[in-house]
Amino acid sequence: MSDSPRRKIPEAALGRLPVYLRILVDLTAAGTTRISSEELAELAAVNAAKVRKDLSYLGTYGTRGVGYDVQFLTYQIQRELGLNQSWPVVIVGAGNLGQALANFTGISERGFHIVGVVDKDESKLGTVVGGVRVKHADELTQIVHSKSVSIGIIATPAAQAQEAADALVKAGVGSIMNFAPTVLAVPRGVHVRKVDLALELQILSYYEQCRNTSLEANGESEQSGPVSA
Amino acid sequence: MSDSPRRKIPEAALGRLPVYLRILVDLTAAGTTRISSEELAELAAVNAAKVRKDLSYLGTYGTRGVGYDVQFLTYQIQRELGLNQSWPVVIVGAGNLGQALANFTGISERGFHIVGVVDKDESKLGTVVGGVRVKHADELTQIVHSKSVSIGIIATPAAQAQEAADALVKAGVGSIMNFAPTVLAVPRGVHVRKVDLALELQILSYYEQCRNTSLEANGESEQSGPVSA
Repeated sequence: MSDSPRRKIPEAALGRLPVYLRILVDLTAAGTTRISSEELAELAAVNAAKVRKDLSYLGTYGTRGVGYDVQFLTYQIQRELGLNQSWPVVIVGAGNLGQALANFTGISERGFHIVGVVDKDESKLGTVVGGVRVKHADELTQIVHSKSVSIGIIATPAAQAQEAADALVKAGVGSIMNFAPTVLAVPRGVHVRKVDLALELQILSYYEQCRNTSLEANGESEQSGPVSA
Repeated sequence: MSDSPRRKIPEAALGRLPVYLRILVDLTAAGTTRISSEELAELAAVNAAKVRKDLSYLGTYGTRGVGYDVQFLTYQIQRELGLNQSWPVVIVGAGNLGQALANFTGISERGFHIVGVVDKDESKLGTVVGGVRVKHADELTQIVHSKSVSIGIIATPAAQAQEAADALVKAGVGSIMNFAPTVLAVPRGVHVRKVDLALELQILSYYEQCRNTSLEANGESEQSGPVSA
């Protein structure tokens, strides 16, 4: 299916590709057709050399003085990330977070569709979430097989996350996105990405503390915190 | 309040501090009292030199052959991030995501407490979410002032996110965590962190595509995808 052997993209560069993609999609919506590496770098808050290096992994180099074709670059990143198809995803946990994710247009519009939501709580069974009916966790394997699911989302409380991971792995799911605030043990070969909802808050609190410190110290010639960085 | 002028920590290093902190908290729970930069680096998936450099911004250097004191390092990071106090936070949007966040122990246990949840939807008013009663969005300014809120979370649909940001800024909130899949315009001096729930999924899809490609190409002497990276 691939026309050349796949190069392995360094993890840090890989993490930036979805950021570029989001910017490119916004640019397209705004009617922009070309962008320079400098402009893309500024929008992504990285430096231009890094943008050029990252995009070189896709085999794309832009044209000096002309920049990148927004539409083609969008296509190239989507292809590299495997987003020229829509991935079937199953969600374990039909609480508020599971429901929010199932209904989140930011997911469904960007290369994924939710084909199953499971929960152990009998009271949640049969309710419709994000267009699918919540099924019992015991049916996970059957859903994974019948819908060819390879990506699972864990949206359970922390105490049930390992059990959910074990069930996903047993069902044959190879990639797991974990929203529960806990570390999962999975066999070698299974990819886990942890989404830490508090992490960004902790970065904001750093800036807020800097702001307060610099307000207290006001009168100094130099602001000590990156208040408007 | 600070005993020395605050150094500005580079953004990338700052982004890793909450990751180290989470690991240290887990280590403490597991009874570990000391850790080397190499061990911490492995758990955080960065290299040891970077860990040492990041922690040097805190003025801490560990002891060769002995490593870092887990408890003291935890304290130092918490202090640096402003987490030796609990920050009052307000959530705009009382839908599934807002409810999930208000109830999320991963937030309330880590330096933040939800003091207000507001929504424009009359049907949601008065319901109790994460221990607080949902109020009308018109009461946002009053909540921000009476509870000294400096951090706001936007958990609205994309179409209402800018309006929510404007209201938070007008109320005097200086830091915003945005969960809506949209770019916000805010005045200079206001910090916005965007949490992109689909971004991690897009990274997983890359790995799944690599896995599929390497399965198709099986028989080659070298795996082309980082299947078990």
